Amino acid sequence: MLIESVLGIKYPIIQAGMAGGITTPSLVAAVSNFGALGTIGAGYMKLEELKRCIVETKRLTPRPFGVNVFVPEEIQSISKSDISTMINYVNQFLGAQKMHETSHLSSHSANTFEKQLEVILEEKVAIVSFTFGLPDPHILKELKKRQVKVIGTATTVGEAIQLEDAGVDYIVAQGSEAGGHRGTFPTTIGEPLIGTIALVPQIINQVKTPVIAAGGIINGRGIMAALALGAVGAQLGSIFLTCHESGAPESYKNKVIESNEESTILTKAFSGKLARGINNEFIRSVSRTTLKIPAYPIQNNLTQSLRAQAKAEENPERMSLWAGQGLGMINNKYSVEELLNELVMDLKVSYREMIDLKLDN
Amino acid sequence: MLIESVLGIKYPIIQAGMAGGITTPSLVAAVSNFGALGTIGAGYMKLEELKRCIVETKRLTPRPFGVNVFVPEEIQSISKSDISTMINYVNQFLGAQKMHETSHLSSHSANTFEKQLEVILEEKVAIVSFTFGLPDPHILKELKKRQVKVIGTATTVGEAIQLEDAGVDYIVAQGSEAGGHRGTFPTTIGEPLIGTIALVPQIINQVKTPVIAAGGIINGRGIMAALALGAVGAQLGSIFLTCHESGAPESYKNKVIESNEESTILTKAFSGKLARGINNEFIRSVSRTTLKIPAYPIQNNLTQSLRAQAKAEENPERMSLWAGQGLGMINNKYSVEELLNELVMDLKVSYREMIDLKLDN
Repeated sequence: MLIESVLGIKYPIIQAGMAGGITTPSLVAAVSNFGALGTIGAGYMKLEELKRCIVETKRLTPRPFGVNVFVPEEIQSISKSDISTMINYVNQFLGAQKMHETSHLSSHSANTFEKQLEVILEEKVAIVSFTFGLPDPHILKELKKRQVKVIGTATTVGEAIQLEDAGVDYIVAQGSEAGGHRGTFPTTIGEPLIGTIALVPQIINQVKTPVIAAGGIINGRGIMAALALGAVGAQLGSIFLTCHESGAPESYKNKVIESNEESTILTKAFSGKLARGINNEFIRSVSRTTLKIPAYPIQNNLTQSLRAQAKAEENPERMSLWAGQGLGMINNKYSVEELLNELVMDLKVSYREMIDLKLDN
Repeated sequence: MLIESVLGIKYPIIQAGMAGGITTPSLVAAVSNFGALGTIGAGYMKLEELKRCIVETKRLTPRPFGVNVFVPEEIQSISKSDISTMINYVNQFLGAQKMHETSHLSSHSANTFEKQLEVILEEKVAIVSFTFGLPDPHILKELKKRQVKVIGTATTVGEAIQLEDAGVDYIVAQGSEAGGHRGTFPTTIGEPLIGTIALVPQIINQVKTPVIAAGGIINGRGIMAALALGAVGAQLGSIFLTCHESGAPESYKNKVIESNEESTILTKAFSGKLARGINNEFIRSVSRTTLKIPAYPIQNNLTQSLRAQAKAEENPERMSLWAGQGLGMINNKYSVEELLNELVMDLKVSYREMIDLKLDN
C-alpha cells in the first residue's frame, strides 16, 4: 500500500491517543505490531506513568508508535465562588469522600508538558501528536532536530494553515463526529463543529502537509472514504475502546456496545472544554442546573475524584464515556488483532467495490 | 457508470431540492440535461407556481427530474402572546410595511400538501422526494401505483428504517453538514446532528434500500467518498447556489463565495425549525434576545415579509442564507454545465487516485 512510505506503517490506520488510561501498552503495541499506528494517550499523565508506558510499549513492539500530548492552556481568570459552588455540587455525587477546596489546583501546566516532552525525547519515541493548539516553536524545533515526526490536530482550515506554517509533518483533521475533546485551538473563535466529509477536502485544498482524517470513521468504508477525500490515512478512536487490550472499564465497554449513532452529546460538564461522549446521568444533571462550569482545565480537576470513584465502582453514569458518532457499528469485544484483521479485510472489499464502479468510462 | 441503472441518470449526482425560489426550471433542467438529477424545491410553493415550474422544466428537458415536498406538521399549541411578541420584534426590522396580527396563519397545511401531490401526479413527474418525515401510507400507495419513484430523507438510522418499512425507493442520509432545514422527523426525540461519514455506513448496515449521501459534499473527492461509504450517489445543494441558473439573489451568491467552512450556524430564527445557514445580522439579533421562537411553521410565516423585503433590497443580513459546511470550496459563479463538467472531471481524477492506491495488494 502507498501509505507504507508515509508514516512507516503498512496500513492507513492510526489509533487515536485517547487519554484516561484507555491506551494501555498492550493496546498500543498490538496496533503497531499489526502494521497500523498505535498511540499512547498521554494527556494529563504523570511523568513516571508516561515513562512506564513508553518503556513497556517498546518492550512489546519493535515498530514505531506515537504519544499524544495536550498543549497546556493558560488558566483563565478564576471565580472562586464558581469553583466553590461546583465543588459543593460534585460533592453531592461523591458520598463520604468529599473534595477539599484546593482540588482545582492539580492542573496540567506548561511545566508538566515540557517535562512530558523530555521523557518522550529521552525514550526516543518516533512520533508525537499534539492536541489543543500549537506548542512553542522551540519545542517543535527540538523535536525536528531529533527526527521525531510531529502530528498536529486541526478542527478548521485556519488551524491547519497555522500547523503547516509551524512545520508539522502531518495534520489530523478532526471532524465534528469525533469522540473526546474537540482539538480546537484556544485562539480560535467559537466552537467549530465541521463534519469530516466537509473538513478534510477543504483543509487539503489549502495545505500541502499530508492530512489524516478523524471523526466518525469506524469500518473499511469509512477508511476508504477518508482516502477518497484525499487523506493519507484515517484516525480511529471509538472502535478500539472495546478491545480486550483497552483500559476502558467493562461498564464503559458495555455502554459503547449498547449505544448507537444518537447516543453521544457534546458537553463541557466533565472538563470545562467541549467534548463528545455518551450521554449519562452526570451530563444530564449538570445540564439541568444553571451552574457556571469553570473553564478547562479547572473543571477537569474538579471532576477527577468523581470519575475515579465511578471507575472503581464501574458506574458508567458518572464516567466521561468519550466516544464518537459511529457507535452503532461497534457490537463486539475482540482482540486488537481480530479487529484490525476485520478492518483491513473490510477496507479491501470496499476498495474492490470502488474499482467495480468503473467511474472512468 | 453503475448508477445509470439506479435513478435513470448517468452521473451519481443529485441536485438538492432547495426551497425558496433557488431551483428555477432552467437550473433543474440543466442538471437533468447533463445526466445528473435535477430537483424542484417545492417546499411551501403555491399550486399555480408549482405547476408552472414543472411544465417549464418539462419543456426544457426530456430527462427525469424530481420534485421535493415538505411533509406537513401539525401545528403545536400556539401561545398568542409569543406570536404577538415575535411580530413586534420582526416589525422593528420591517420599517414601514408592518405585519398584521394574523400573519402567522398562512401556513403549509396537509390540504396544500395533498394538492401539491395532485399537481405532481397530473404532470407525471418521475421522482418525488420528501423531507420532514413520512407521508401518509395512502399517498405512498398512490405514488407507487403511478410508478413514481419515491425518495425519503433520514437523519438517523431509526428514521431510515421507518422509510424502508414504508416502502420508499431511495433514502437520502442527511448528515449534520447539510445546508437548509434538518430533515428530522417530528417524532424523533432531540435534534440528531450526525456527520455524513458516520451516518451513511450506519444506515447502510441496517437497510437494504439504496442510500444517497447528503451533507458537506462539494467536489469530486466528496462524491467519491459518498460512494466509498456505500451510497449509490451524492446529493449536493450549496454548490448549485452560485450557478447562473440559480434563483438565489446576487447578494446571497456573493455571501456564499465569501464564506468558508466556519461561516454557517444552526438556527431556528427564520422558521422555528433547525436549519443550517450562513450566520448574519437577523440570526445574531434573535440569539441575543430571550424571545421564545414560535414552533415551525408559525415562525416561518412570521419572517416571510422580512425575507421577501431582504430579497427585494438585496440585503443578505436579513435573508435565510441556507448553506452547508463545504462553503470554503465554492469560489465561482458558473453555468450548471460548467460546474457539472468540472465535478465529473474531478470525480474521475479522484477515482483514478483511488485505483492507484492498490489497496488489494
